[in-house]
Parts: sequence; C-alpha cells; structure tokens
Amino acid sequence: MKQKDQTKDLTITSGPLPGSVKIYVEGSRTDLKVPMRRIDLSPTIDEDGNKIQNESVIVYDTSGPYTDPDYVVDVQRGLPRFRERWIEEREDVVRLKEQSSEYGRMRRKDETLDHLRFAHLNEQPLVAKDGHRVTQLHYARKGVITPEMEYVAIRENQLCDQIKEKYKKEKGESFGANMPEYITPEFVRQEIAAGRAIIPANINHPEVEPMIIGRNFLVKVNANIGNSAITSSIQEEVEKAVWAMRWGADTIMDLSTGRNIHETREWIIRNSSVPVGTVPLYQALEKVKGKVADLTWEIYRDTLIEQAEQGVDYFTIHAGLRWHFIPLTKDRVTGIVSRGGAIMASWCTTHKRESFLYEHFEEICQILCKYDVAISIGDGLRPGCIADSNDEAQFAELRTLGELAQIADKYDVQVIIEGPGHVPMQKIKENMDLQLEYCNEAPFYTLGPLVTDIAPGYDHITSAIGATMIGWYGTSMLCYVTRKEHLGLPNRDDVKEGVITYKLAAHAADLAKGHPAAYYRDYAMSRARYEFRWKDQFHLALDSETALKFHDETLPSEGHKTAHFCSMCGEHFCSMRASRKLRKQIDNENAGCNHTS
Amino acid sequence: MKQKDQTKDLTITSGPLPGSVKIYVEGSRTDLKVPMRRIDLSPTIDEDGNKIQNESVIVYDTSGPYTDPDYVVDVQRGLPRFRERWIEEREDVVRLKEQSSEYGRMRRKDETLDHLRFAHLNEQPLVAKDGHRVTQLHYARKGVITPEMEYVAIRENQLCDQIKEKYKKEKGESFGANMPEYITPEFVRQEIAAGRAIIPANINHPEVEPMIIGRNFLVKVNANIGNSAITSSIQEEVEKAVWAMRWGADTIMDLSTGRNIHETREWIIRNSSVPVGTVPLYQALEKVKGKVADLTWEIYRDTLIEQAEQGVDYFTIHAGLRWHFIPLTKDRVTGIVSRGGAIMASWCTTHKRESFLYEHFEEICQILCKYDVAISIGDGLRPGCIADSNDEAQFAELRTLGELAQIADKYDVQVIIEGPGHVPMQKIKENMDLQLEYCNEAPFYTLGPLVTDIAPGYDHITSAIGATMIGWYGTSMLCYVTRKEHLGLPNRDDVKEGVITYKLAAHAADLAKGHPAAYYRDYAMSRARYEFRWKDQFHLALDSETALKFHDETLPSEGHKTAHFCSMCGEHFCSMRASRKLRKQIDNENAGCNHTS
Repeated sequence: MKQKDQTKDLTITSGPLPGSVKIYVEGSRTDLKVPMRRIDLSPTIDEDGNKIQNESVIVYDTSGPYTDPDYVVDVQRGLPRFRERWIEEREDVVRLKEQSSEYGRMRRKDETLDHLRFAHLNEQPLVAKDGHRVTQLHYARKGVITPEMEYVAIRENQLCDQIKEKYKKEKGESFGANMPEYITPEFVRQEIAAGRAIIPANINHPEVEPMIIGRNFLVKVNANIGNSAITSSIQEEVEKAVWAMRWGADTIMDLSTGRNIHETREWIIRNSSVPVGTVPLYQALEKVKGKVADLTWEIYRDTLIEQAEQGVDYFTIHAGLRWHFIPLTKDRVTGIVSRGGAIMASWCTTHKRESFLYEHFEEICQILCKYDVAISIGDGLRPGCIADSNDEAQFAELRTLGELAQIADKYDVQVIIEGPGHVPMQKIKENMDLQLEYCNEAPFYTLGPLVTDIAPGYDHITSAIGATMIGWYGTSMLCYVTRKEHLGLPNRDDVKEGVITYKLAAHAADLAKGHPAAYYRDYAMSRARYEFRWKDQFHLALDSETALKFHDETLPSEGHKTAHFCSMCGEHFCSMRASRKLRKQIDNENAGCNHTS
Repeated sequence: MKQKDQTKDLTITSGPLPGSVKIYVEGSRTDLKVPMRRIDLSPTIDEDGNKIQNESVIVYDTSGPYTDPDYVVDVQRGLPRFRERWIEEREDVVRLKEQSSEYGRMRRKDETLDHLRFAHLNEQPLVAKDGHRVTQLHYARKGVITPEMEYVAIRENQLCDQIKEKYKKEKGESFGANMPEYITPEFVRQEIAAGRAIIPANINHPEVEPMIIGRNFLVKVNANIGNSAITSSIQEEVEKAVWAMRWGADTIMDLSTGRNIHETREWIIRNSSVPVGTVPLYQALEKVKGKVADLTWEIYRDTLIEQAEQGVDYFTIHAGLRWHFIPLTKDRVTGIVSRGGAIMASWCTTHKRESFLYEHFEEICQILCKYDVAISIGDGLRPGCIADSNDEAQFAELRTLGELAQIADKYDVQVIIEGPGHVPMQKIKENMDLQLEYCNEAPFYTLGPLVTDIAPGYDHITSAIGATMIGWYGTSMLCYVTRKEHLGLPNRDDVKEGVITYKLAAHAADLAKGHPAAYYRDYAMSRARYEFRWKDQFHLALDSETALKFHDETLPSEGHKTAHFCSMCGEHFCSMRASRKLRKQIDNENAGCNHTS
C-alpha cells in the first residue's frame, strides 16, 4: 500500500502570544534558564493626562521555545536537548548500544517506515547504570537538589517576589495544603522526597522543561491528544501537541490507538517541551492486533521499555484493577469506562487470573526507576456516569492504588494517582479525602469529574465544574475534557477550548486555595477593565485572540480600543464609566456622604 | 427620520425539539394544562434480538406553545391569554379605562410609533380593585391555593411519580433545603406564604405559564436579552426571547437601553410564555435623556406603573444602595459595576441625599401589589472583580436588602434577592449563608458568580462554575452570563450557549441537592450511552442539535447511529463496547472471578 509521506508540510504554530515577551530567568548556573511570559501593559492616564507606567505581569509559560521569536522552529531536528548536561553530570547513566526493546529495534530496522521516521534518531537511548536509580525522588531522598528542582522552584514563583504594586491577596481555604509564600529549591526537594509532588522528566526526554505536580504548587492541566483508528495523522498530532502547549497544557498525553503509534510518539516527544504521558497498554494491544486474550506480560514489558527509551515521562498503568473487583461492577449502569480498565478486566476474565499489571508491579517499578518514568496509577474502575459514582468498585480500587503507591515508593519511582470521572457535586470531596488517606498524599490527577451526564456537546463545562472544585480540594493536575467527549475526536479548536477551560479551572482553584502568586493577574485584569485599557485586558486574558475577536465583532475600530464603554451596555449605560465619573465627583467635592442617616 | 418597519418579517423559531413530543398534564380544571416535553426512547435490543421498550423521559418544558406542532405562531396576535379567566374569577381586579401611566398614554397616542406598535393592543390593563392586593403571596397567606400554585406543583413534579423503572437516586447534601418527594399544591402555597418561594405572574401577563422560584424547587435560569444603544432591533429581541425559552430559560429579563424600549417590551411580553423581568431604572434614565441628575421619583414611579400595566412580572429595584454606603466602595478596584447601582450612586452623590428608591420603597410596594409584580431587590454594590468580593460595601447592602424584604412582606409583595457577581470559590458559601440569615430565606438570585477574572471570552464558564456551586448551596435562580460578557452584546448563538451552560449548572445543582426528580434523566442518558442508542443520547441531551452535529462531524452515516463505538476511541478501543462484551462473558460463564486472591 502506497502511503503519503505524513511528515512533510508540517505547519507548526509559532511566534509570541499577543502583547507578550518571552523572558528567561537564570538560576544558579548559566544553562538553567526558566522561560516566562511577560505581559507588558499600557500606562494609566491620570486626571491631568499624565501617563503612569503599569507594572508588567509575569505569567507561567508552558509554550516552549515556539513562542521565542529568536528560536528557529525545525520539527525535523526537534527541540534543544538542554537538560542532557544535567543528566550526564550526575554520572549515573550510560548510553545504550542499541534499544533494549525488541519491538523498538524491529521498527527502527524496518525500511518501509523510513518515510515516517523522525529524522534525527542518531543517538541511542540512555539508561541508569547497573544498580542505580535515576529518579528525582531518589535524588530528593538523598538530599540532592537537582537543577530540575531549582528550575521548577523558579518557575512556580513567576517572579512574584518582585511585584511592587500593592494588591489584595485573599485568605484561601486550602484544606490542609501548605503553600509557602515563596518556593525554594529545598522546599521542592522536600515535597518530592515526601512523595507529595513529582517532576516527570525521563532521562531520554532532555528537551523537557521541568515542571512539578503536587498539591502545594500551582494546579496543572493535562491535554490528551492522539490519533484513533478512525481519523488523524502524525502531522496533526504534532501540531496538536504544540498547539496545546501554546494555550497552557502543562503536560500532554499521547493516547494514540491507530497505526504507527511508535513513530507518531517519537515525533511528539522530540518536539514537546512539556512532559509526555502515555498508556502503554494501548500499544501493547495494537501489537497483538487488538486481541485482548493474546496480551502477555512480556509484550507489555517490552512496550514499557520501548517507550521509556523514547522518552515518555509518565505512564498510566491500570494495575489497581484486580481480578476480584470485576464483579463489583456487575450492577453498574455503564460498567467499566476506562479503556485500560476494560482491557484488563477482559484479560482477567478470559484467563481467569489476576491482572499481570498487578502481579508484576514490582518489576514495572524496577524498570521505570532506570529511566525516571513516573507512574500515573490508573483508575480502571472510575465511574462513567453519575449513577456509578463513589461505589464500592471505585473505592476498592482506590485502596489498591494506595498499596501500589507504597510499592513504587520502595523503588523511588515517582507516583501520581488517577481519579474520576463522573461524580455529582456533593460526592466530589469524598474522592479527594479518601485519596489523601489511602495514598499518603501522593498527587491526585483527575478527569473532570463531570457533574452531570445530560450535556453531551458541553462536557468541557460539566467536567470543568467538577475539576475546579476538586482542584480546590487538593487535586494536583486536571485532565482536560473537550466538548467532543462522548461524541467524537476533538479537532484543533476543541483542543484549544479544552485547554483554556481547564486553565481557568486550575487558576480558579489556585485562587480558592489562596495561592500567593495567583491573585496578581486577576488584579491586573480588573484594573485594566476599570481603566478601559482594552488591549491590556486582551493580553492578560487566558485567550487573548478570542477576547479581541469578540470585542471587535461589534466595535472593530482602533479607536474603540481606548473607548470608555463596549457594545454590551453602550456608552450611557456603562457602569464602570459611571463609577469612574462618580469617584472623581466624590474626590473633587471631598465631601461625599459619609454619615449614617 | 424615516424608520424601517422593524416588526415585519419576524422569523420565530418554532416546532418540536428533536425526538420530543409536547404533552399537557391536566390539573383539577380543564383550563389548567401543564405543558411538558416527552422524550421517547428507542427500544433496548437484548441478547436474542428481542426489543424491550424503554420508558419515555418527561422533562420540564419552558419553550411555550412554540414547540407545539398544533399551535399556529402569530407574533402579531401574541400568545393565548389562558390565565385571564383565573385572574377574573378571583373578582379582585378591574379593567382600566386608560393607562395610568402618563408616559404609557403618551406613547400610545403618538402616531409616529404606529409602525412599531404591537398590533393587538385593543384592551386596557387590569389593576387591583381599591383596597385589594392581587399577589400570589396574598392568596397564599389567606390559605387559597390558586390555579397558578397547582400549575407549578404539577410542573415541578415532571410526572416523576409515574416512573416505573428502578434507578438510583442519590442522597444529596441540601444545606437545609427541604424538598419533598412529591410537590403538592398545598406545599407550594406554604412555601409562598413563608416567603421562601415566588410565582412571578403579573395580572397583565395572562400569557405566562406559571413557574416557581424557591430553594425547595428546581433551580431556575434567567436569560438576559435586550438591545443597547449600539446594536439590535425589536425583531431580534423577540426572536431572542423565544429562542432563549426554547433552550430552557425559565425567565427572561429585557434589559433594553436603546430606543423604543416601551414598544420592544410590549412585543416581548405578548410573545413570552415565561415571566419577564426588567430594570425600570434604565427606561427612567432614557426618559431624562441619560441625565442622571434629572431623574426623579415621579418619573420612576410613572415608569413602574407603565411597565406594570404592560405585564412585566418582576422588577429589579436597586433600593438597597443607600447614600452612606457609597464611600465604602472608595478603595474598590472596579468600583460599582451594577448599572442600576452606578446610576443610583451617582444620583445620591449629585443631590447629596438618600436614594429615592430606598425612601419610597413602601410606596413602590403599594403599587406593585396591585399588579402582582414581584421585586428582585438589586445588589447595586455587587463586586465586579475577585478583589472586591465579600467586602463591607457588599454585605452592608445585603443587610439592607433583608430589611427591604421585610417591608415588601408587609404589603404581600413577592420578593427575591439579587446576589454577586465575582467571587473566588472559597468565599461563595458565605454569600449564601448571609443571604439566608439576613433575608429570612427569601429566594436568592445570583449572577454567576465568576470564580476568576482572567478568562474574558469564557465567562459563561467562569460564571457557571460559581453558579453551580451557589445553586447547590441554595440559590433559587441563576442569571446566565454569556461568553460575550465584558466584551460585547451576545448574539443568538451566544444566548443559546449561555442558556444551555446555565441549564447544566442548574441541573448539576439539583443533583447535588438530591432533588428527587433530577436523577432520572442522567440515568436514562447513561443507559442509552451504554447501549449505544445514539439517537436517544442526542434527544436526552440539553442540546440535541449540537450533540448530533459533533457526532456527525466524523461519523455522519445513518448506520453509525447504532454503531457500538464513536470516532473518539474507534471500534477496538471503545471501553463501553468492551465492558458490554465482558459482562456478557461473565454472565455466560456464570462463574466469574468472585474470590479474593
């Protein structure tokens, strides 16, 4: 079969975001440069027409080098491997002579795949030296502050210590989370050592800009991409990854289940500056042509190694779905809705035996600690509808996830725990409370939860409601849901909308927790709003382009970018305009009405 | 100036919603027929290919006669005045010889407005006989169960007592709300008598299908429409009203501030089967050509009467913003963001005296009880940004709203209380708790609240998050926010999206409160999902058209409407498909794996 060269004509979105400048904050070494986005604001014009400069707003930047105007995008070459030196300096890794995975070797030798292959596969993967563990958890426990830890400390602070302006910070309700005013590298180390946070950063993904997932840090967002058997190409998937990063995805998961998974993933990782997660079981199933019964531990194991050596930063592994839990789902309305969960349940039932993921969990950890692949322990029994929420199947599995987290801990493997799903509001907090209790505060990573089932086409919203709440309660990372959920594969616009929706959810959760650095952007936005600095409002928005577009639908002229009203209320009914005039009036009279009649 | 006839060529969306049948449930009298929407489902196909009929799902229907295929839409004539007999039977009203409002008379006599006028203005308005109060609250207190009360009781139940299917109801957390399993007319009467619920139904709006707003009933949604000086025509506004009702708006507010407000409103009311609210202050200000200083109690009073005699069902009145509260907003970031609030604050400051709305509140009540116009006491000092939330200005006003509610109570005027605004999550519940405390459980009606300021373009979502939570805590009606908020005037698509977003928020709140009738639709949706009854999923969705469209983007063929997968995961990775196969496997073997190894 003749195939179109899918890697040609890659158009990758690049260039700065509107009104933004890419800056780098240097750490203790010259090769440790943390990217941030500086939003420069226009001046405030006072009564007398004087211009008063407004402080720039620095925000967290997930977009990678793509938004640096000095960076020449070359997807054939991939991103700079700036972390390589940090890894080598630790002197605990060796470069392999060839891939350890049988399948990986086979794919590389197959000449019919040449047209699909990432061009610069000239180096072999790294692996830990014998007897070594190369995880951030391992270093943290030994008391070592790695460059990665310093990097995330600088990154989390967003230079908030340098804000001169006085603005109102709110007392949050953090439900036991403990966020210091200022994050130090040592604090990062302690949180990782305690298992309360992870830095997903495979030694074979030196392009990754380190980021941290944990309850005492900013809430993070994951975007799923990946082709399915029905649609999508490599080209689309790489652009989707870069696109998701641009709008704020802190990690991406490549959930491809179609053809050429191996090659698609290579392209994505080499071009991704955020951590990449996968569900290795999907590819293992592809290898046995979709026949669940033919899955074996050996095939799965080879897949783990194959992907670890490509540079995947975290694996979802549904090891908590044990054989004897399956009957607990018997009376569910929607059974098992996790793909990985359904596969493993089917395997257990067919072979009448315990899950090989559960049985081989120690061996899995022994493999992953050699590459620093983190485990996201999957919730194969998460509820797929309101009626199935918080049931015995779900919580039996959650207890098991806690036990597995303890095993991973023995091997210094970094762990996060996956959560639901579909849960009505009054039952969300129980999920968080039990997760903290069963899993010893390991970071929680939830999919929504969706707070109702009846709004297909709007499930980015039904899920963002639950996500915002559970983020507030203590979830560390929110897996986005797009509006196509339950209906079809998301396109580029859906991905962007999903990411922005989850960014606002994560940010609202940060605010509610009382995160020290979270309030400043809201404050700057509100001041810009009150002063009718329209461009500043657009630039401070999570999605500048959409805000501008909506404004311009009715008032497109440049003059209206400084107008003291918008088309929503019109000039005479703009409350902000009236309120500003009122304030002036009161100030001028200096009399006011300050009595109590 | 030559004007285009704006009332011609009205295209009004009508016809049944997909997969739905309009039904009427008759009450104790033949002219009491409560419309509902019946969603008929396709059968379940069992293992042996037998068809098992699924029970239809009955849902609350706000769409009015427009979705009845037997109804001939005629916007020139307006909707049937079916409530007229109920009103006349009470023998406490008289028909006026001419309008009481000077302005109303003047507009009707003005021949240059003929081309704008609603055609069938052949009757004069009703008013209470001298010494009578004609409010539902008045009747409730006298122990009378009105047809309106019986109507809402039937409506709220959605025939849930007739559901035969066993489905899981969840224990809710209702924070003190008390929702019976089945709503009786007597329960409705008691709730109204206690001031915990209202039925907004002006005696001059006999077209209205009665609905109830209160904490112990389904959470309701309001959609704002209305032109501004910048855009929009009468034609658009009537269609927007019908359009908002179609998608689930329980009430609409006509917030027009442009020209021909009087005539626009007449068209909207005559064609609206849901209650219509307004902010009379906006029109009063138009009458003085936008000059706040020229506003007087007399002009405002005339406006109240003018609108009451047109049939407006509830007025937002910002009477709680007292003169001496204004300095409390001095240090706010965004000052006063309520339009009505900004106008009144400006008036007080200019005239150096107490608000005429506050001073004349008793007189206002004396007027409104003659028409049964409910008051929505406005929160002129609601916070316009996160930084200003829950401040002294806001809560000082809230206490005053409670005092005003007590005054309205003396005159049997039905009351709801308006609430914020912009509030971070951890501070939302305090709003609800204080409102219940200060306002003696009068229904709360909130705008959002938005949980962050930084997502213009997505404020339907930032606000729906807060709205869902405060709805759970006990808010009775949620005022929608569209994605155009802060940026421009919403168009038709924005209105629909806003309504659907708030319907899902209200429904999620009903679920969380444990509303007895709320769970069945989610259950039916989830069963349809598990059985791949795609059409049923579309029909059960809050927005069938969008769900269908998204599905068909990748799998448009008719055959895929029964396919056991969708394009999201594809055939081999569909967990529901796998889960169904698994269940069959377990059932067949009848062995399972029910042990604890």
